Amino acid sequence: MNYMACPAEASGRWVRHNPSMIRCFAPDVEAEGGVVTLRDDEAQHVARVLRLRAGDVLRVFDGRGREFDAVIEQTTKSAVTVRVGAPRPVVPEPKVAVTLAQAVLKGEKMDDVVRDAVMMGVAAIQPLFTTRSEVTLSALRRGDRRGRWQRVAVASAKQCGRATVPAILEPQDFESWAPGGVQLGAPMPGKGSLPACLMLVEPSAAERAVGLSNIDPTPPGAVTLLVGPEGGWTPREIECGEACGRLVTLGARTLRADAVPIVALAALFAFWKEF
Amino acid sequence: MNYMACPAEASGRWVRHNPSMIRCFAPDVEAEGGVVTLRDDEAQHVARVLRLRAGDVLRVFDGRGREFDAVIEQTTKSAVTVRVGAPRPVVPEPKVAVTLAQAVLKGEKMDDVVRDAVMMGVAAIQPLFTTRSEVTLSALRRGDRRGRWQRVAVASAKQCGRATVPAILEPQDFESWAPGGVQLGAPMPGKGSLPACLMLVEPSAAERAVGLSNIDPTPPGAVTLLVGPEGGWTPREIECGEACGRLVTLGARTLRADAVPIVALAALFAFWKEF
Repeated sequence: MNYMACPAEASGRWVRHNPSMIRCFAPDVEAEGGVVTLRDDEAQHVARVLRLRAGDVLRVFDGRGREFDAVIEQTTKSAVTVRVGAPRPVVPEPKVAVTLAQAVLKGEKMDDVVRDAVMMGVAAIQPLFTTRSEVTLSALRRGDRRGRWQRVAVASAKQCGRATVPAILEPQDFESWAPGGVQLGAPMPGKGSLPACLMLVEPSAAERAVGLSNIDPTPPGAVTLLVGPEGGWTPREIECGEACGRLVTLGARTLRADAVPIVALAALFAFWKEF
Repeated sequence: MNYMACPAEASGRWVRHNPSMIRCFAPDVEAEGGVVTLRDDEAQHVARVLRLRAGDVLRVFDGRGREFDAVIEQTTKSAVTVRVGAPRPVVPEPKVAVTLAQAVLKGEKMDDVVRDAVMMGVAAIQPLFTTRSEVTLSALRRGDRRGRWQRVAVASAKQCGRATVPAILEPQDFESWAPGGVQLGAPMPGKGSLPACLMLVEPSAAERAVGLSNIDPTPPGAVTLLVGPEGGWTPREIECGEACGRLVTLGARTLRADAVPIVALAALFAFWKEF
């Protein structure tokens, strides 16, 4: 929301610039005073798209929650080296670590889900292959979709100001992943009584589901949020979700499959007073 | 989420079919037993895309909250007439009538905002032209963008199962619309003390803003939700919003301009226990 075109400092070049400066992902950054080399995508973006040069200032973040001021030392065709300056305060991560366990959606919709989930503040994304998924697990692996989603996650973290890049976990078949997987989100001791897992279902799919605002309002330490594919969960998958946690709905209207995660995350974070 | 390919009754044709049947927008529908002619877009969709024929069943909704079973009587190249059957229960509208007063976004992003806002359950959408809008009011009017958004609203209502199609109000210049416009959402007497208007701002844009989950949890009868353009509100616009209501934020991360409405609506409806 707060990006606007502003002239880069002391130059006539125009860049996409937010009030808190250009941010680059530099997973190798170590500490103030060090030098770090920006990797391929980041180097290209800085040198060719933004056309920054030695002496220009930016920020680097390590994807694990740290961010620093930095100054460009050198740009070449393939690499940009920056000197790392003082650490900076970062946007706090949500108090609840949400793993979005998302059935893989078709085409670019999954990219949008990853982008939005990172922006909303998830801790990790677990792509799942379910009975009604319209994409096969082997096709996913052939196309290195996981690598692509990880790049989408980096881009989203850059844009939304997060210093943490959520992990995109290895895509799994739902049947073999659950119920072990849904226990990943087990509540931390003493941190509330919410089940380890919330499975989003359509109101028509499960009479045993409750509206999301009826769950325990005490924020858990961590939770796994299960979101199904375009065609929904099978009854067997819903049984599995119910065995491991709680079935929840988002009202009576039919939401687009790719909108369910952002709506559910916004609702949960509002409910847990993250906003 | 719950669309899947199923064979149409008693035929080998495959259609996009949700469990509650094909739904057509028929604003002229009057009562059970009558006959209604589907208009251009709807007729094309039914006859040419879905290839339904006399005797096929569907549902019609009037966009004002009523829905009926229906049977096709005749299809021609340009029109489809249907006989209206029994009224059907509809998905309830949210208890809070939210008018989304949205600064017009660039390109197709505004279409997405309209689609999502209708799916989330807004009562009306007021497109606004603000100081930092990257689209001019005259360009909007020339291109009949309002008509386009109204068609997007119909399509979204069909897909999400709403029998109500929110009105797309005539686009207005923010300065001349406010503060009269923001009072449209004045709370109904005795229905809670929330201000008539909530203006979404970036945390950096206004120290006087509160997190959305800090507002009064009593649902008002109606509210106007003001969402700014890509470049944000000007300080003067924020002053105007503050004079008419409450400045609210959605946490510390930067949200994409076109994601702000769906996130804010999901958070508000969760907060007001619509889910």
